[in-house]
Amino acid sequence: MKTNTNYRNLQEQYLFKNISDRAEAYLAQHPDQRLLRMGVGDVTRPLPSAICEAMHRAVEELSHAETFRGYGPEEGYLWLRQTIIDNDYAPRNIDLTTDEVFISEGAGSDLGNLSELFAKDNHVAIIEPTYPAYADASIMAGREITFLPCHAENGFVPDLPKRRADIIYLCFPNNPTGTVLTRDELAKWVNYARENRSIIIYDAAYESFITQPNIPHSIYEIEGAKEVAIEVKSYSKSAGFTGVRCGYTVVPKQTGLQPMWLRRQCTKYNGTSYIAQQAALATYTPEGHAGIRANIDFYLTTAHLIKDRLQHMGYEVYGGENAPYIWCRAPHGWNSWTFFDHLLNDCQILCTPGVGFGASGEGFVRFSAFSNRQDCEEALKRIQTLA
Amino acid sequence: MKTNTNYRNLQEQYLFKNISDRAEAYLAQHPDQRLLRMGVGDVTRPLPSAICEAMHRAVEELSHAETFRGYGPEEGYLWLRQTIIDNDYAPRNIDLTTDEVFISEGAGSDLGNLSELFAKDNHVAIIEPTYPAYADASIMAGREITFLPCHAENGFVPDLPKRRADIIYLCFPNNPTGTVLTRDELAKWVNYARENRSIIIYDAAYESFITQPNIPHSIYEIEGAKEVAIEVKSYSKSAGFTGVRCGYTVVPKQTGLQPMWLRRQCTKYNGTSYIAQQAALATYTPEGHAGIRANIDFYLTTAHLIKDRLQHMGYEVYGGENAPYIWCRAPHGWNSWTFFDHLLNDCQILCTPGVGFGASGEGFVRFSAFSNRQDCEEALKRIQTLA
Repeated sequence: MKTNTNYRNLQEQYLFKNISDRAEAYLAQHPDQRLLRMGVGDVTRPLPSAICEAMHRAVEELSHAETFRGYGPEEGYLWLRQTIIDNDYAPRNIDLTTDEVFISEGAGSDLGNLSELFAKDNHVAIIEPTYPAYADASIMAGREITFLPCHAENGFVPDLPKRRADIIYLCFPNNPTGTVLTRDELAKWVNYARENRSIIIYDAAYESFITQPNIPHSIYEIEGAKEVAIEVKSYSKSAGFTGVRCGYTVVPKQTGLQPMWLRRQCTKYNGTSYIAQQAALATYTPEGHAGIRANIDFYLTTAHLIKDRLQHMGYEVYGGENAPYIWCRAPHGWNSWTFFDHLLNDCQILCTPGVGFGASGEGFVRFSAFSNRQDCEEALKRIQTLA
Repeated sequence: MKTNTNYRNLQEQYLFKNISDRAEAYLAQHPDQRLLRMGVGDVTRPLPSAICEAMHRAVEELSHAETFRGYGPEEGYLWLRQTIIDNDYAPRNIDLTTDEVFISEGAGSDLGNLSELFAKDNHVAIIEPTYPAYADASIMAGREITFLPCHAENGFVPDLPKRRADIIYLCFPNNPTGTVLTRDELAKWVNYARENRSIIIYDAAYESFITQPNIPHSIYEIEGAKEVAIEVKSYSKSAGFTGVRCGYTVVPKQTGLQPMWLRRQCTKYNGTSYIAQQAALATYTPEGHAGIRANIDFYLTTAHLIKDRLQHMGYEVYGGENAPYIWCRAPHGWNSWTFFDHLLNDCQILCTPGVGFGASGEGFVRFSAFSNRQDCEEALKRIQTLA
């Protein structure tokens, strides 16, 4: 048996595992210390009661013969797919059919698995810094990658690739920089993809954090995008589902890829948990929606607080307006891991080193607003002493 | 962008979708009729209360800040992995470490995704008839396949492949024939794989239905299997989790593939639902275990009933002893779909056409014991009129 040798081209270790290993090592040496986690992008607020009630009801249904449910459709229950269209797309005048919406147990899986739909010899362009999984999935498939560097000089908005790209990964609001694209900036990418017959994989996991008016919430707000874009959405950050597991992916028929993705899911996926789908449905009820909005607003307030205070201390910071992330330049010309280590060892704070999101992230760290207010205040106080 | 052209080599439609389309078409023309579902392998018994209570508690934890849980480890919570080793492996003198056990949202995903670990140019051998996804996943990866036909003449036990196989898919107790392998028969495969440096992907989803003594419950009961076998397990059939979604896969370090699978999961998977993992844990408590055993025993009694009655009617039947499936030869020399259509149109019974599991399944249908007793009795009565 021959293994997939492309795996040998992967960098040694996955970013978040690397961070947690360093944290564990620190705690092993300092068992009395408590770390303030301002790093990993995991939510911390409990689920709104309307969502928990929906899950309790779903569990109850599974416990009685009359209401028991086994396998659902591989692409997700129709009631959820229709609700998504009615709430997330129709109000923005985006016309989708239910067979273009695929429920899954999370955006992370879809973003990785979509890679299978394409031939090996496609050239990939990936916005950078970014979530490392786009590049890793492309490396596993043996594809060449051009990174599209985002830095303070271009306002963290990537330039069109110099080398023609077949597959383009974009993520807006961006993780980790917090950048959003205007309608015109996004239209530039849709037009590029139409002219070059490229496909855009659009990670919109942080869409619900957009506060600024006139920023597109979906790539399909741009004319022609249904021909060239797959949009991946998650309930993880918007509704706190990182432990529940539910997301969805839109594959418009006009991309030509809808039958392939359906086939892929019917072959390698047996459908999403009934309980998780009922939880997702509950996010669209008035009570559920109010509950998740309250959590998002809480995180956004935290983000603004972190940004303001760091700015006040003299740090160069970005993001934090339309995203739960603050992108902060390391002081004293330090590199990302040096700043990370100072924050860990001197302040007992965990952040995410920017270079972990790609070479253009070097010299930055990402702070996350997914913490409780008390820890956040305490962390900011400690950073003050560092500065 | 170039698509993965291997998808063009897939057969038109996925078996179970095809069946449900025919059922829908029948019901559209006969809206007053009710179909007796003796086909698709989905469970029907409600979840035992101990398991539902565990899920209610997990939901409750997610609803409070103090007990909220977000992302878990990509490979699953340690408490579940350790419990699996202690209960499913240690009592059989199988020595595994927790990092060799990977929790997932289902065996279907793992069986499909494992394909990624291998180079394209591996020759695949697949037991046949079988679950269509092994072949479909191999076709999607562009691999050549040798099928290992199982028929009445070889007692549904496959012969070793004539052409050297790099990757071997085995499934025992077998879906759809219900066959099990003795220790000696399984050892023959392990030895073959050791001699040929092949990898066996061993689908043991129906392991808990084994009633016969001295039948191996895990491939690791065979000496040397840890060097050459990946074992995929599911809570779907054993605990009724088809709607809950949880399974696990064992990738022993001796296969050399454990670091690759860990990397794959850390890149393309964000961990299994906390609620589903708590549900899986509850299957190992005395109450949970008693509950799932009662369901398995119910299905096995149904399987014996179907087998006995069909045999009595003069049908040639196999399986049904160590598996929830009865493999039945179509009467009158009919092919699988002809028998399927007769059962659908004349008896309003849904079965699964054997040919859907591969060419060697032609002339058979699969009856499933995952039905309620009343429907089963009624179905058998109707089949009597057909005969």
